[in-house]
Amino acid sequence: MARDTAQSAVALGGGHGLFASLSALRHLVADLTLDELTAVVTVADNGGSSGRLRGEFGVLPPGDLRMALAALCGDDEWGRTWADVVQHRFDGEGEMRGHVVGNLLIVGLWELMGDPVRALDWVGRLLGARGRVLPMAITPIDMTAEVRGVEPGAPDEVTTVRGQVEVATTTGEIVSVALDPPGPQPCSEAVDAVMSADWVVLGPGSWFTSVIPHLMVPELRQALVDTSAGLVVVLNLAPQEGETPGYEPEDLLAALFEHAPDLKIHTVLADVRSVTRPEALEQAVGSMGAELCLADIAAEDGSVRHDHDKLAAAFETIMGGITARGD
Amino acid sequence: MARDTAQSAVALGGGHGLFASLSALRHLVADLTLDELTAVVTVADNGGSSGRLRGEFGVLPPGDLRMALAALCGDDEWGRTWADVVQHRFDGEGEMRGHVVGNLLIVGLWELMGDPVRALDWVGRLLGARGRVLPMAITPIDMTAEVRGVEPGAPDEVTTVRGQVEVATTTGEIVSVALDPPGPQPCSEAVDAVMSADWVVLGPGSWFTSVIPHLMVPELRQALVDTSAGLVVVLNLAPQEGETPGYEPEDLLAALFEHAPDLKIHTVLADVRSVTRPEALEQAVGSMGAELCLADIAAEDGSVRHDHDKLAAAFETIMGGITARGD
Repeated sequence: MARDTAQSAVALGGGHGLFASLSALRHLVADLTLDELTAVVTVADNGGSSGRLRGEFGVLPPGDLRMALAALCGDDEWGRTWADVVQHRFDGEGEMRGHVVGNLLIVGLWELMGDPVRALDWVGRLLGARGRVLPMAITPIDMTAEVRGVEPGAPDEVTTVRGQVEVATTTGEIVSVALDPPGPQPCSEAVDAVMSADWVVLGPGSWFTSVIPHLMVPELRQALVDTSAGLVVVLNLAPQEGETPGYEPEDLLAALFEHAPDLKIHTVLADVRSVTRPEALEQAVGSMGAELCLADIAAEDGSVRHDHDKLAAAFETIMGGITARGD
Repeated sequence: MARDTAQSAVALGGGHGLFASLSALRHLVADLTLDELTAVVTVADNGGSSGRLRGEFGVLPPGDLRMALAALCGDDEWGRTWADVVQHRFDGEGEMRGHVVGNLLIVGLWELMGDPVRALDWVGRLLGARGRVLPMAITPIDMTAEVRGVEPGAPDEVTTVRGQVEVATTTGEIVSVALDPPGPQPCSEAVDAVMSADWVVLGPGSWFTSVIPHLMVPELRQALVDTSAGLVVVLNLAPQEGETPGYEPEDLLAALFEHAPDLKIHTVLADVRSVTRPEALEQAVGSMGAELCLADIAAEDGSVRHDHDKLAAAFETIMGGITARGD
């Protein structure tokens, strides 16, 4: 790690959070800080176009995989055009409404090739992608959560909520989450990528439904614990209604350790203006032997999204300038 | 024409007939007999995946365009793989059943780009296609036919049948066909390609629903009459139930001239074993000032399909060896 030569990175997550980290990390591929970039994507989505295709074909939900591929598209007319195409969502009022071109393309490739990883590699080639996109598991997964206070009249009652969409938007307080099946078959290429990486990026994103699921696939969790890669945890800019209402940044870290107590974090990256109590976060991060990197990484349009260029600069500081753990 | 340098060809048709002529003509691109190949495709299909997409989005029916593009795919792993992908038809029992990946891709590109020709060019680039695929008109068309004897009890009664599928499979005798709208807006790139071509290939294919419609778009018919290109008409191997039951080869030619009396044919190409009365065909072809080329061009698997390699050899003889009309 922290070699003179270029390094490899793996980013784990799902949805818009992973799109943000990949949109930043692609810059590090362009400037040769990274020579290898791999995205590992949650496959528990049960909503929208992905949910419909999953229900119809019994395949992995393609949406988050598609979005990760689009984030890595080549930086020329070819790459940008095909990224626009795969991201295009059908309008209208008929049976195709809401489906996304790239989801249908991926499912077609899966049907044709039978091999989910090979098919995703072909979409990556189509896009001239600057990295590889892999699923965290090779069979679709359902999420469940034990949630307190879903029913308005019973604030202490804990009920089971099923489905990624339902968990992400629950009105109660999430006590715990689980995968169904509990030990899904991992994607071996993803496990290998984590083990051989110089850097691993976890987050930002929906904490319980996009980030923590990676720690619930046993082989993938073990790889995240065992790897000599420097683990960078990117915190969210704000608590998320549904999943993490009222969460302080240090509560997000605590939730990670609940699922992987042996996890060794290299750097916690947080937006400097989003942390209201830096001392508390500093203390929590220090107590786990990690560095805290407070940087200006939020978009300035008030969207509660990360700015891709600023996030890239922060990654550059961490991966280009600091010697990673394990050296 | 018949230059020392390579020449250009335009093939007009639809469906499996056009797929056959393009699968043959691509060989002439590979061996440099042709340096430019353009397919012009009927857009009257109202059945299957195309019919559903046309109904839902009001777009051109993409199926025959997709099939023509696949016929021209690059002759390497990249081209063949993407051809397989765009030709892949979804199985299963849900809402996607019967849809074809390439149809959805084309409709997505149309929605995104708004320009049907530009979108098809992008699919051609994806496939590494050896030629360009254009629609014969830029708005969808319906076919109608006056058909005698549809009703079992009234053999002389003429009724109007609407829809390409319905016309192609009618049980009566087709008296005449028409387009709705009768003067559709042509694709100007297709008209230009016909005008500047060295060779134009018409047929094989469903005569009334894939071949003759090109003669019913006024500007395209005029271009086919005016062009100095050598016009090669490829006859079908057998009468087609529905459209042309009991038709002799010369009846197919007569039907063309009914729709374009000024058409000048360079060569009529027919399978030597499929013509039962060669003298009658010879006489009909001679009377219109054209050459008759009887060649072994049928597949040997009993499928009533043209053999692509044999058809290519016949095209090679015609386009490589004979000086085209107009020189």
